[in-house]
Amino acid sequence: MKDYQAYLIDLDGTVYAGSKRYPAAKRFVERLQAVGTAFKFVTNNTTKLPVDVVANLADNHDIYVTTDNVYTAGLATADFLDQRAGDGDRTVYVVGEIGLRQALMAKGFTVDEEHPRYVVVGLDSDVTYEKFAKAILAIRSGSTFIGTNSDSNIPKARGLMPGAGALVDLVRYATQTSPIFVGKPEPIILQNSLAQLGVAPQDALMVGDNYQTDILAGIHAGVDTLLAYTGVSTPEQVAQETIQPTYTVSSLDHWDLEVGPRE
Amino acid sequence: MKDYQAYLIDLDGTVYAGSKRYPAAKRFVERLQAVGTAFKFVTNNTTKLPVDVVANLADNHDIYVTTDNVYTAGLATADFLDQRAGDGDRTVYVVGEIGLRQALMAKGFTVDEEHPRYVVVGLDSDVTYEKFAKAILAIRSGSTFIGTNSDSNIPKARGLMPGAGALVDLVRYATQTSPIFVGKPEPIILQNSLAQLGVAPQDALMVGDNYQTDILAGIHAGVDTLLAYTGVSTPEQVAQETIQPTYTVSSLDHWDLEVGPRE
Repeated sequence: MKDYQAYLIDLDGTVYAGSKRYPAAKRFVERLQAVGTAFKFVTNNTTKLPVDVVANLADNHDIYVTTDNVYTAGLATADFLDQRAGDGDRTVYVVGEIGLRQALMAKGFTVDEEHPRYVVVGLDSDVTYEKFAKAILAIRSGSTFIGTNSDSNIPKARGLMPGAGALVDLVRYATQTSPIFVGKPEPIILQNSLAQLGVAPQDALMVGDNYQTDILAGIHAGVDTLLAYTGVSTPEQVAQETIQPTYTVSSLDHWDLEVGPRE
Repeated sequence: MKDYQAYLIDLDGTVYAGSKRYPAAKRFVERLQAVGTAFKFVTNNTTKLPVDVVANLADNHDIYVTTDNVYTAGLATADFLDQRAGDGDRTVYVVGEIGLRQALMAKGFTVDEEHPRYVVVGLDSDVTYEKFAKAILAIRSGSTFIGTNSDSNIPKARGLMPGAGALVDLVRYATQTSPIFVGKPEPIILQNSLAQLGVAPQDALMVGDNYQTDILAGIHAGVDTLLAYTGVSTPEQVAQETIQPTYTVSSLDHWDLEVGPRE
């Protein structure tokens, strides 16, 4: 096994399941901290601020990290647009919540509801027909269409609720325009987080429970992958895939930081 | 040319364009009325009541018909579910406006927000994340998924706004379930309107401006078609289609009820 310099780690399904604690994941994070290996939680969440992700981990899962350990698709979208906009037009119309909005504002983007340079669509539990209409009219008038991530659903206590990808897909259907996606399984979010860590893709490991998002993101970014069978994906499903994860474990307790999988 | 016993006629783009009058369409309707040929306006609209469609034609377009001359996708959806439900469960969850809601209530359907037998999604300018969530949770729990129509957009003064099909597509994406569509280009709406008229498909003519909805609906229902180049479709676009309309005219003035096209 390689001596990985950085771990990129999914959250829901990997470190916890909603409010349910994963003690093996807590031990895994503490082992990384004990040896001083860099890590970031890389999540498709765009509704929360990094400080809220940190608070949730501390308050509900007894896991203690800093905001430097958190990279959301909201932050990744803002960083992506920051690079893309350069010295140019930084107007944006946003369908999304505070995690996305604040990340964009922090990069100097300002809202233009009628003639924005970019339209960014993410999860928004206050979405309305009017918000969709503004996004669609702008994209049809030439604004660049960005989707934070393509997740079809988000798991909640009530069941599988509409995900960011569903909102994006409404806009895609009504504009007949495909968006640029930033979140997993696209490589952008991983590339950005590795750039912040100063670690090359071949020296990092992406850890997650979902083949279709976490593992594919690693594959697309040229990052080795560790699939933990603690959430969405099952061994039967993954057996059907052409490209296999680099490693698989049934529990993060079975991942030895110096040796690899022990099962 | 056949002696058509009934005409099925699209509205927007064929009989008027928003608030713009089409004098040739008014003359066409009056010619049908003069010779006593049966006709119905067959529209994918589900937001208006038939009485409002009649009032709009009278007040804004000087065209005088009765509600018997109007068949909306709202009515067609209610008739379709009426037949499908039979003596069974008539609970429904509706994302839609009054035209759809009242049509369903008139057929004895009642709303169940949690465990409906059917989920019906149509255009709803008051749609919210919560409405989408209820629809998606129900379909994922086994409710049958009905879409009133697949139109990607509706033309408004502001531009091309999100159509019913866009709302349906969000639900499709989040449930990974394809809906049953009722409106044009599906044949159901034409079949129902012909059944009400007591006219066989081969004795009717579908008149419209949009190849992708009006003409395809006729083709799917085995009904001859007359494409009027007064709205969406252009001769250049239609030339690319494998199956051509039965007839085309540049104006409904050029359609002779006894002879056919005169151009």
